[in-house]
Order: sequence, then structure tokens, then C-alpha cells
Amino acid sequence: MPSGGGHANDERHFKDIQDIEFTVQNGKLWLLQTRAGKRAAQASIKVATDLTRERVMAATDAFLRITPQQLEQVLHPIIDPSAKREVVAHGLPASPGAASGRVAFNPDELIEMQAKDGGAYILVRSETSADDIRGINAAVGILTTRGGITSHAAVVARGMGKCCVVGASTIDIHEDKDEFIVGNRIVTKGEWITIDGTTGEVMLGKLPTTRPQLSSEFQELMLWADLVKQMGVMTNADTANDSRVARQFGAEGIGLCRTEHMFFQQDRIDHFRKAILAQEQDERLAALEELLPFQKGDFLDIFQVMEGLPVTVRLLDPPLHEFLPLPHDEEELTALAKRLNLPYRRVRERVHALEQFNPMLGHRGCRLGITFPEIYQMQVKAVIEAAYELMRQGVTVLPEIMLPFVSAEEELAILRELVFTTAEEVRARMNFPETSFKFGIMIELPRAALIGDRLAPYCDFFSFGTNDLTQSTYGYSRDDIGTFLAAYVEKGILKKDPFATIDKLAVGELMRTCVERGRRTNSELKIGVCGEHGGDPESVKFFHQIGVDYVSCSPYRVPVARFAASQAAILTKRESNGGLDTRSKILHPLSG
Amino acid sequence: MPSGGGHANDERHFKDIQDIEFTVQNGKLWLLQTRAGKRAAQASIKVATDLTRERVMAATDAFLRITPQQLEQVLHPIIDPSAKREVVAHGLPASPGAASGRVAFNPDELIEMQAKDGGAYILVRSETSADDIRGINAAVGILTTRGGITSHAAVVARGMGKCCVVGASTIDIHEDKDEFIVGNRIVTKGEWITIDGTTGEVMLGKLPTTRPQLSSEFQELMLWADLVKQMGVMTNADTANDSRVARQFGAEGIGLCRTEHMFFQQDRIDHFRKAILAQEQDERLAALEELLPFQKGDFLDIFQVMEGLPVTVRLLDPPLHEFLPLPHDEEELTALAKRLNLPYRRVRERVHALEQFNPMLGHRGCRLGITFPEIYQMQVKAVIEAAYELMRQGVTVLPEIMLPFVSAEEELAILRELVFTTAEEVRARMNFPETSFKFGIMIELPRAALIGDRLAPYCDFFSFGTNDLTQSTYGYSRDDIGTFLAAYVEKGILKKDPFATIDKLAVGELMRTCVERGRRTNSELKIGVCGEHGGDPESVKFFHQIGVDYVSCSPYRVPVARFAASQAAILTKRESNGGLDTRSKILHPLSG
Repeated sequence: MPSGGGHANDERHFKDIQDIEFTVQNGKLWLLQTRAGKRAAQASIKVATDLTRERVMAATDAFLRITPQQLEQVLHPIIDPSAKREVVAHGLPASPGAASGRVAFNPDELIEMQAKDGGAYILVRSETSADDIRGINAAVGILTTRGGITSHAAVVARGMGKCCVVGASTIDIHEDKDEFIVGNRIVTKGEWITIDGTTGEVMLGKLPTTRPQLSSEFQELMLWADLVKQMGVMTNADTANDSRVARQFGAEGIGLCRTEHMFFQQDRIDHFRKAILAQEQDERLAALEELLPFQKGDFLDIFQVMEGLPVTVRLLDPPLHEFLPLPHDEEELTALAKRLNLPYRRVRERVHALEQFNPMLGHRGCRLGITFPEIYQMQVKAVIEAAYELMRQGVTVLPEIMLPFVSAEEELAILRELVFTTAEEVRARMNFPETSFKFGIMIELPRAALIGDRLAPYCDFFSFGTNDLTQSTYGYSRDDIGTFLAAYVEKGILKKDPFATIDKLAVGELMRTCVERGRRTNSELKIGVCGEHGGDPESVKFFHQIGVDYVSCSPYRVPVARFAASQAAILTKRESNGGLDTRSKILHPLSG
Repeated sequence: MPSGGGHANDERHFKDIQDIEFTVQNGKLWLLQTRAGKRAAQASIKVATDLTRERVMAATDAFLRITPQQLEQVLHPIIDPSAKREVVAHGLPASPGAASGRVAFNPDELIEMQAKDGGAYILVRSETSADDIRGINAAVGILTTRGGITSHAAVVARGMGKCCVVGASTIDIHEDKDEFIVGNRIVTKGEWITIDGTTGEVMLGKLPTTRPQLSSEFQELMLWADLVKQMGVMTNADTANDSRVARQFGAEGIGLCRTEHMFFQQDRIDHFRKAILAQEQDERLAALEELLPFQKGDFLDIFQVMEGLPVTVRLLDPPLHEFLPLPHDEEELTALAKRLNLPYRRVRERVHALEQFNPMLGHRGCRLGITFPEIYQMQVKAVIEAAYELMRQGVTVLPEIMLPFVSAEEELAILRELVFTTAEEVRARMNFPETSFKFGIMIELPRAALIGDRLAPYCDFFSFGTNDLTQSTYGYSRDDIGTFLAAYVEKGILKKDPFATIDKLAVGELMRTCVERGRRTNSELKIGVCGEHGGDPESVKFFHQIGVDYVSCSPYRVPVARFAASQAAILTKRESNGGLDTRSKILHPLSG
């Protein structure tokens, strides 16, 4: 009684490839059951587009068959499915793709080694900070033992399209000994490991990976998606390079350009530190004046790449201490004082004074614009000067200026005045006929969401910072959630990480309330979401339903967001039609 | 043409003492104008009660004439008005009253010196932490250079009824030199200074202060207040001593008993540290078992003092790292490892692992109950065992158990189960007929407020933690707001410190929403506010209006809260009557 399973081409009937289970008994073939076959991502996309072109299935159904995870797989390298995986730890899947590399603990050392041998290195750290950016850039992947999926390492890695596993808490790093311990294994610097940012797995050794090509079917699917979707898809990008990648992936503009990342670069950070450490306004203005050309240069590059598309520049957001050495790092403090030619005592005192207990709830965001207006003035000057210079050369520039972390109407009124006055000064000086930029704010705090009706009249747009809004609504710090997230998911308290998939219940209610109240006092208000939720299909569908105009996510998630936006449009339409098929309208958008 | 001003007893007509401006012209007396005279607090109270007793004025009007600031003055020492003040710095008025003392920078040294000479010392620090409690206790006043009015120093000082000025940021402390610098003055250890916690002033030298007596008029006024007010007034107290003081001041129970303060005492902290540093559950259970008698002993004392009144015990709230030495304090770490007989490496690693970036948004509150259920079990055991022991002796004990920092329904369901199962075990073991305690949660997060309808069915009561709710709604850390609060008040962005007077716009909306939703699914729900807002008259009025049942504040603010609650009742009633006088009902409640 032989029996077995196999594939059969029964696609026309079941509208998918089939796994068929059969048995042969007394010379007779019995079909036992048949079900949709499991296919690799690439094949799945090909089947869906083929069936659509052959008019076997509506394009809308094709969309709903493909999962965003499959798209992610097409966009990022995966571990060869036939390779044997020896998984030694699990972390959170922070940025998709897989990579093998030699272990490095110190970002500076990693840069050096990589420059020397051009090899593949994986940066292994308890957590990363802004100082590690160059090391992250030189690595093929990042592995951290702490932090959640919106921790520094995760966000930066996603932005760079680099695979990343965070919060692998069973790994015990002993940096002093250049090794980490996991279970009963000791892994030393230079050993090969492989990480899978799609599953969160950490493996010993070097596993073969494959980088799928973007097929013509993928390109076609994306084109259809753009025809169906109603929301715009923008990107979060801080450099000309990121902007270029995002544009290639179909981004319709920059929804979030974080200006502070520009300050961290080697040639600029000390100028900014000088501005922070200044005691007199003159001194601060002089230091900022030195920074202006750098900042303007960045905007020139980005505006050029994004010609014809909006670029939303967020003014300085992080607390100032992030730009300074740690208060107890005497060596760094001494070196800094020497480099800047400042008394050590002043540097030490200022660094101590800027230390914060809960920096995410502290002196940050547009609060800095209130206490240090010179910084925001310099930034607005850089944006507007760069825009006018390019416009003079015939480049179409669409700058938008955005304030972070607004919590009060009076704060917004003062800063709007500051932004417009500064822009007007530049306009007059450069002799331009009119100012032409849009002005808006981020909604990151429950208070801002609740007083949306009071804030909207000052703004052309709102942009929800859903990471921060989730943080403040839940009281979950993105960097600390790793310490209890696993227990919370295991016990069913959290069905999903709220930093990955939006919490519709409370965070969602605040968003819906804000959209309604904001549009009540400003019917023209454009509303966006910039944050990692913009790349999550379930969240994107929710945003679509509450009337959000666009989402903005890291460059490598743009295709997923475009696709998710099209799924959201289809599903929402179906639901509002009581489940009726909408085939008539969007069947075969490109057939003919 | 001589002219001048003077007092005249025209009280019967104007219902207050009068300042009369007059001139004598050609031998004729001309009264130019007359207005309510300025009086010292004590006199003000006497006038109001006298006029009421003499039926010149309704009791309700008497209430509205007296300001809470006047009550504060009556309750705390003030600087002799004739003394010359040399003000060298301004901070935030964190806890009312005035005190002169010698400067001390180190809390341990202060305790030693005070024990030796019995003198008055003022503790001067950049900020305080839980470790400094004993030093604060031994000081006559506290002066900090950082932090807002709900910083650690401020809250602790108010709880102790000790005067305190915080965030005096122009003072530059050089602890290594045992001195502080303010302007061009150097003040060294042992020098006399005077601080005024009602105004926030810091003065050099020793100024004479007077401690007003609580007059019979004051006592009478308080009695009337209790007859008029509709909200209960409870207290925040963690010791038998605080409880006693609060009861004398008229507290109707304890609304917030913070159990963690009990862990900080010298004889207990190491037991708790052992529990935190434990690797195995057995080890942790053993350490907690050692802590149980201490915790139970505290409850026995408090329950006894509060006999017949409810005592609301909040289970552990602060992040665990607060109980451990700082990660870079190698000396302390080594000493601790030695004391606990643990490997140094383990201590160091655990301390590092528990470090948090934003502790107020991190692994704290009932999240600890989920990840370390043994801690909450021990605490519930201590509460219930203590209650039954006393009940057996005929003492009436009304325990209530409260969970901090709830943000999700599932979290609450799990912990409610844990609390009730533990209590039931104690009941069965001690052979009591029935469990009799109330169970509730704190509402400190926007998410909890918004899902009040889902949380209420699990609870007998909600208690708003308005400090934390303000923190998360505004994104203002209580400890860091000092760095920008002054600029925000100066520029009119904040009319008032939202940690002192509740923000009705957004925080208030969340509270109102929560009250409505909570009562919708549980009509019996009791709703309170525990936090410093409970002692602020404007906030108390708002709480009254949205249907809050009780407020809870530090012992020394209880009289002010009672008074404010009566004012709130009168004003709300007047407003709802369209301004009609309600004299008929509450005129002369005690006359006859």
C-alpha cells in the first residue's frame, strides 16, 4: 500500500499551486486531499502575477495572497534553506536579511580590521549608541543583547538595510576578554557567526546566504500596488545616499529627515559640542555659524536627489547630552576640553548639568528650540538657503519644516514665529519673491494628540511619531522594553510588540481623536505617520482607515509599505462593501 | 493738607477688616477709599471665623476668603517678617516652611554631626536619592540645585513636613571642596544659611523664624470644612509615625502606602538586594522570606495606628536598580559582593543588566509583579498576615491592595489572580472565615486611562497617580523638568507647573474619560487621586467636579486638602446654582 504526496498542476481550478496527497491501492490512484502548496517568496510572486495576467484571478486577490514577509525575503539575503543551522540564541528580528561575519566587539576596531582585510564583520554589543554609527556602517550585521525592535541598533540597521538581531539576552558579553558566552559555548573575537534578522536567530559558523534578484514580476506587482493604494509612501532618510536608495524603491518623498544625525559626523561633532558648552550667546552663535555650511551642504545634496519630491526636515530632537562624552569618562572629558581649548572644569560641569534621569522625557525636542533658539534658527537658515540656491539653478525643491515633541499650543506659537521670521530673513536677503515651504509638527505625546484641534491651525501637516507615542501612552521605553517584552509576549499580555504593530486600542484611539480634532479646525491638514509602524502591514491598514494621508519608513521597507498600502485599500474597500468583490474596478490594471 | 491711610473697624459693613485712605482738609475728614486690609494668616482665620460666628457672613463666604497659602503659613514656621533677608538664590518652593541651619553636603556626615551636637543642619545636594532618607530625616531643611517640585527631595520633604527648596540651579556645588558657589559668594560646610520653602528663597546667615500655634479658630474652621466637603481626604504615609501625624491632621485613611520605602532601611536593604541578585528562584524565595517579617512588622504598626480606617498598600513600584549601587561604583560593588558572599562578577553583571536608559518608562511597577511574582506574593502575604493577626486581637483593619503602573487588561487579570490566590492561602492557613480586603490599581498611564472600561471590572477602586500621568501625557520627566521649567513659565508656555496644578486640558480629559468609562462597567468603582495634586486647591476643585471620591496627599498637606475640598464643594454648588448663595444649607454649621 504505497502512499505519498506530490505537486500537480491544478492551479486553474484552485488558483494556486497545490500540494496533493495521494495513495495507490490495488492499482488505483486515490487523491486524499489537496491544499495550497508552500512556495518560496520569489515563486509566490511569480505565481500571483502569472495567474493575474492569465485572468485566472483578480489582481486584488493576487495582492492578498502575497504576505509582506514574502516581500521582505525578496528584498534581503536569506540563509540557503539547505544549510544546517546550529541556533545558539534567539533575539528580536530587528532588521530583515541574513549575514555571516567575524565577531567584533569594538566598533573602532571593526572599522580598522574591515579597512585592512575588507572582510565581513558582525558588530556584537550590549547596545549601540550614536557614537557607533560608523562601526555599524562598516559591519555586515548587528547583534545586541539588549533593547527592543526600536532600539538604536534596530532603527539604524533598518535604515541602512543591514540585518540586525537585538535583545539576544542569553548572550553574555565580556568585552574585556574579547569574548561572549552563550549557553556552554565561548565565542571569541574573530570567530564566524551568522545572524538572521528575519527570524531573530543567532548561529555559530559561516552559513551560505543567497541574495535574491528583484524579478520583473516583483517590479510589475509594485506598479500595480501604486495604482491601487491611496496613501502616499515616504521615507525616513538623513543622507543623499539613503535618499537615493529610497527613491529607487519608490519613495514619494522624505517624511522624516533627522538633522541630528548630521551633527554626529567626525568633522562636525566638535563644532556642535562647542555650541552646547558655550556660556555666552556670542560664543554659541559663532560655533553654530561654523556648523551652518555643513548642514546646508547636506540639504543641498538631499534636495538635489529628491528633486520634485517633498523633503520634511525635522529640527533638532535628541537631548544635548547625547552629543557629549559620558560624565564619568574623565579621559574623554579631558581630551575634549583640550581639543576645544576650554577649561576642564567648565566642560565637566556642563556635561554633568546636562545629564538626565529620563532623557526621553526630558529636555529634548522642540523644548531645545525654546531654550536654545539659536540652534533652530541655524537649522532653518540652512534649509531655506539650500532650497533657494537650488531653485535659482532651476531645481524643484519642496522643503517642509517639522518640529519634534510638541506638547503645548503656546510652545508651537512661539516656534512657528521663530521659523517663519528666520525664513523671511533669508528670503529678503536672497531676494526671493516668496517663501515656499510647508510647516508642521510631530505628534508624539498624548497631550499633543488630545489638543490636535488647538495645534492644527498653526500647521500644514501633522506627522505621528508612533514610536514615541507608543512609548508615552504605554509608558514603555523603547530601549528598556527588552528586559520584560519576552515575558509579556509569553504570558499573552502583549499579543504583539506594540513598537512593531500599532496598538489600536489606546494609541490608535489617540491617533483617531487627533485626526478628527485636527481636521475639525484645519480641513486642509495633511496627516502622516513616520516611524517603524509605517512598514508594518497591519498598522498601515489601520492608518488608512483613520484617514492618514501618508506613511514614512526606512528606505528598505518602502516596497513593503507600498504593498501594504495597496492591501489596506483593497481590504478596506471590501469591508465597506460588505465583502463584495471589487474586481470591476481594479482587475488587471495593466493588462490589455 | 495732611493725608494718610489707616485701619478702621468697619467690618460689619464690608465683612472684612478695612484699609481706609483718608485726608483731612480744612479740619474736615474725607474718606477717599476703603478696601479689604492685608492680614497675616492667623489673623485672617480669626476674622473669618469671628464674622461667621457673629452671623455677619455665611460660613461659605468665610471659606472662600481664606487662601490655602494662608493655611500653609499657619501650619509651618515662617521667617520673622521684620528680619532682613539677603536672598542669594531662587529655587522652586517644594515644601513650605522656613528653616535656618548649617550647611552639610554629605548625608552621613550630617547625621553624625547632628547626633554629636544636636544642631540644625540643612542638607545641600544636587539631587537626593533613596539612600539619603536618613540624612533628610536628620536635617531641618533640604536644598537641591536640580529637580522639580515632584523630585525625590521635594516629595520626601513634603511627606516629612520639612521645608525644602529644589532646583536652585544658580548654586554650584563643589562637594570635593566642601563648598558651594553662588554668584560671587563661596559658602563652606558649617556656615549658616536659611531657606524658605514657601517662596523658594535661599538666604545667607541665620534668620529668626516663628512657629505659629494651631489656634482654636483653625480647629473650628477645619471642623466646618469636614461638614461641607464631599470628597474624602486620605494621606500618603509609609511609616507608623507618618500615619500618626496624618491622623492628627484629620486624614481619613492611607491612600498610598509605598512599600518600597520599607526596603531601603539599613537592616533590610541587603536582604532585598540578595533577592534581586538571586539567579535561582529558590535563592530569591529564601531572601524574600527573610524580608517578610520586616514588611509584616511595618504593616502591623501602620494598621494599628490607622485602626478603623482604610490603608491602601501599593505593591513594589520602582525599578530594581534603584536598590543597588551605581554600576560604575566599583568600591560599593565590591563591598556588596563581600557582604552578601556572592561572586563579584555576578553582582557587577546583574547591576549592569538592571541599568536602564529611561527607568521611569522601563521595567518597573506591576511589570515587576509579572517577571518576579515572588516579590508581590511576599508583599501580599505580609499585608494579609498582619491584618489577620490584628483582627484576631479585635483591631479593625481595612486593608486595600493596589497595583502600580498598569497598562493592559491581561496584565491586571494575571496579577489579580496572583494577589487573590496568595491572600486565600493565608486565609486558609490562618483559618479565617473570609478574605476581606479591597483590590485596585493606579491609573498612571494614558493607556490605562483610555481602557478604564476594561480595567474596572477587576477592581474595587482606581487611584490616579497624577504625577506619573502628567509625566507620560506631557512627556515631562519630574526629575528633569527643572532644566527647562523656568524658561517655560517665563515665556508663558506653562502658566503653572503641571506637577503642582493639574493640566485640565489633556491630563484632565484623560481622567474624566477614565472616570466615565470605569463607572460604565463598574458602577461601584471608588475613584481617588494620590499624588501631590491632592494638596492643590485648584486641582482638588477639578477632581471634585469630575466625580473623584477622595484625594490622598502627604500628611502635612492634609488640612489644606480638607479645606480645598470644602471650597471645591461650595464653588461647584454655586456654579451649578447659577451663582445663587447656598447659605440656607450650610450657614453656621456649628452655631447655636
